Amino acid sequence: ARIGVPNTNSQGAFVDYPYYRCGDCGKEYDLDPKFYTCPECAKSQGENEPLRGVLEVMFGEDLLELEDLIPVEGEYFPPLKVGWTPLADVPRLRKKLGLKNLYVKDDSLNPTGSFKDRASFMVSAFAKKHNINEIVLASTGNAGSSMSGIAAAAGQKVTLFLPKSAPKAKIAQALQFGATVYLVDGNYDMAYDLSMEYSQKFGGMNRNTAYNPMTIEGKKSVSLEIYDELGETLPDYVFVSTGDGCILAGVYKGFIDLMRANFTDRVPTIVSVQAEGSSALFRAMNSGGKFENRPTATVADSICVDVPRNGYMAYRYLKEYKGKCITVTDDEILSAQNDLARTTGIFGEPAGATAYAGLLKMWDKLNDNATIVILNTGSGLKDIESALKVVTLPTNSIQTIDDIE
Amino acid sequence: ARIGVPNTNSQGAFVDYPYYRCGDCGKEYDLDPKFYTCPECAKSQGENEPLRGVLEVMFGEDLLELEDLIPVEGEYFPPLKVGWTPLADVPRLRKKLGLKNLYVKDDSLNPTGSFKDRASFMVSAFAKKHNINEIVLASTGNAGSSMSGIAAAAGQKVTLFLPKSAPKAKIAQALQFGATVYLVDGNYDMAYDLSMEYSQKFGGMNRNTAYNPMTIEGKKSVSLEIYDELGETLPDYVFVSTGDGCILAGVYKGFIDLMRANFTDRVPTIVSVQAEGSSALFRAMNSGGKFENRPTATVADSICVDVPRNGYMAYRYLKEYKGKCITVTDDEILSAQNDLARTTGIFGEPAGATAYAGLLKMWDKLNDNATIVILNTGSGLKDIESALKVVTLPTNSIQTIDDIE
Repeated sequence: ARIGVPNTNSQGAFVDYPYYRCGDCGKEYDLDPKFYTCPECAKSQGENEPLRGVLEVMFGEDLLELEDLIPVEGEYFPPLKVGWTPLADVPRLRKKLGLKNLYVKDDSLNPTGSFKDRASFMVSAFAKKHNINEIVLASTGNAGSSMSGIAAAAGQKVTLFLPKSAPKAKIAQALQFGATVYLVDGNYDMAYDLSMEYSQKFGGMNRNTAYNPMTIEGKKSVSLEIYDELGETLPDYVFVSTGDGCILAGVYKGFIDLMRANFTDRVPTIVSVQAEGSSALFRAMNSGGKFENRPTATVADSICVDVPRNGYMAYRYLKEYKGKCITVTDDEILSAQNDLARTTGIFGEPAGATAYAGLLKMWDKLNDNATIVILNTGSGLKDIESALKVVTLPTNSIQTIDDIE
Repeated sequence: ARIGVPNTNSQGAFVDYPYYRCGDCGKEYDLDPKFYTCPECAKSQGENEPLRGVLEVMFGEDLLELEDLIPVEGEYFPPLKVGWTPLADVPRLRKKLGLKNLYVKDDSLNPTGSFKDRASFMVSAFAKKHNINEIVLASTGNAGSSMSGIAAAAGQKVTLFLPKSAPKAKIAQALQFGATVYLVDGNYDMAYDLSMEYSQKFGGMNRNTAYNPMTIEGKKSVSLEIYDELGETLPDYVFVSTGDGCILAGVYKGFIDLMRANFTDRVPTIVSVQAEGSSALFRAMNSGGKFENRPTATVADSICVDVPRNGYMAYRYLKEYKGKCITVTDDEILSAQNDLARTTGIFGEPAGATAYAGLLKMWDKLNDNATIVILNTGSGLKDIESALKVVTLPTNSIQTIDDIE
């Protein structure tokens, strides 16, 4: 990376590439773990609203390699292969839908079984670079088990706050990886607040999604890969399930970085798909950016959040780059999960299948020749109870062939 | 592949490479799906004993590429990426054990989360080549969900017989993939018999492990990859958990094929690790090859089989190539699972961790500089109940930071 190329920031001071820039006010900061959100904008942070002052990592424009867009040097990377998941050909699904250039980017094949490994990877590397050995976070489940696994490989300690309703598989996974787990008597938002209080009081690097800009930097890698895997071209559409807005922002950030560094000249149309029961961003899109705090409930636990932490950034990106935001019902999600499994052999978690449910909803508006990527964010194995809602376990067992029919 | 290079078989008749050769009596057959085990040797097949006459696929000696050792042409491959899983560097585990060249081949990162995808892949391709659209099998769980997923991608029908005690995650996965599932009121061996009866009566390609030689051909790919990933050199040891002996035989077959085709000049030391509660091969090794049928029980469900279907072949390979066979207890397996997860970030299913438990047991006999590969055969997410046996779910939930300690 062109890390170390000198530059002058907007205040005329010397800075190195890459550096932080506040997405809200534009102020610039060194790439230093003492910064999370912009200290100026954080002053006006309200309770129960999305984060203000989420920082973006800025790179130079004269980049030669995709690797130049990675903000931490390879020597600090944890020793697990994250990313470069298959951009799967799905011939049967293409035929069924009449979409000739449809792909599924299958991020369930990351080491801990979810997209979140991308964020955990970069946070682990950033912490390692700065000799910080404890990582603190709140999670609905995937981010927690992900950070625990990546940190186990890297030899870092993890302190994790989970709502006690998190799926047992995700809790078990984090515990197996040796994390210290606190089950919170409340929802993700309460776990989030406790994790913030914990890291402020006891130290460690906080990995909360969007709050730590490295989560977005890790997540953006999926867009760099899609660009590379499509032979250095851009897709027309990317379908992304959305809860707190951080994966959406990460996907955008990757494409924006490619454009800023002059690899490309546009940003694809990103379709953000929310569950009807957790649709704060969708409502904000239809009310001029107003985020209203409502209790949420959806089968897609990974995207079930009252307060979308990266809501303002997600909103801004969607508006600026003419993205779309739509909702789907829980029934549509579960049915899409099963349909995707039967047609492609890819068994996504409900939140992963949400993106596909969104494609089905927008299907009649899509050009047959458009290049379309559906992002599967996690493995269906993490939530077997939901998977059993649309399939039927045989009620009878058999003893002989004659017992069949 | 040198498919189509003419040759004369041991009876003087014309055959094409590759062809089948009976591992027991040496008779040769065309590579035709009408053959499963050797028809001659099958005549002396007893009940409740390992399969007689398991066929090996034979290749020429003048091969140039590893791909020449694959018996089905690429045009028939299912559209999911199987194999080429990470040969993971495990720096923390290396340091802990003082083994400088230790690797984990992480086959939990196959599309359906297990090593069995390798066998399913080759069976699907072989069925496709011969226009057979239904695949029939018995399974303790992984092979069934694997075949269902791979066949879903390829558009083939699966009929699956599972013991009703199979872990719910594996049943749910198979159902999500659209397989027809029969739960059998009995163990794997009974499911096996029913699946044989079914395919004899109703047709379809039978994928039962070892019975269909393509299962071994698929599984052997792991050895070709290890050889390639180690820079075209062989490891000194490979640790493999063993139930029915088919993965063990597949691992051997890959190394044997490399040697027969003159890529290499030896076969590594393979260590077969069995659960104490399901150790038929271990007992056979210590009783001159006598397989005695005893009821089995182990937490590692994937390697829990009364009759090791590929026992005779596994026994012969172990003897011929001076492999070892050892046993570990369920406690050692569960403790190894947790230790591996904490030290490497790899969360294997109990059967996967069994191989690592075997390494721990043989640890003082291993040279520090030996190149050692542990095979992780499946994802821990498939059996959360077992994973919860050695970790403790927090009993209390918290509401404030003061609730900590």
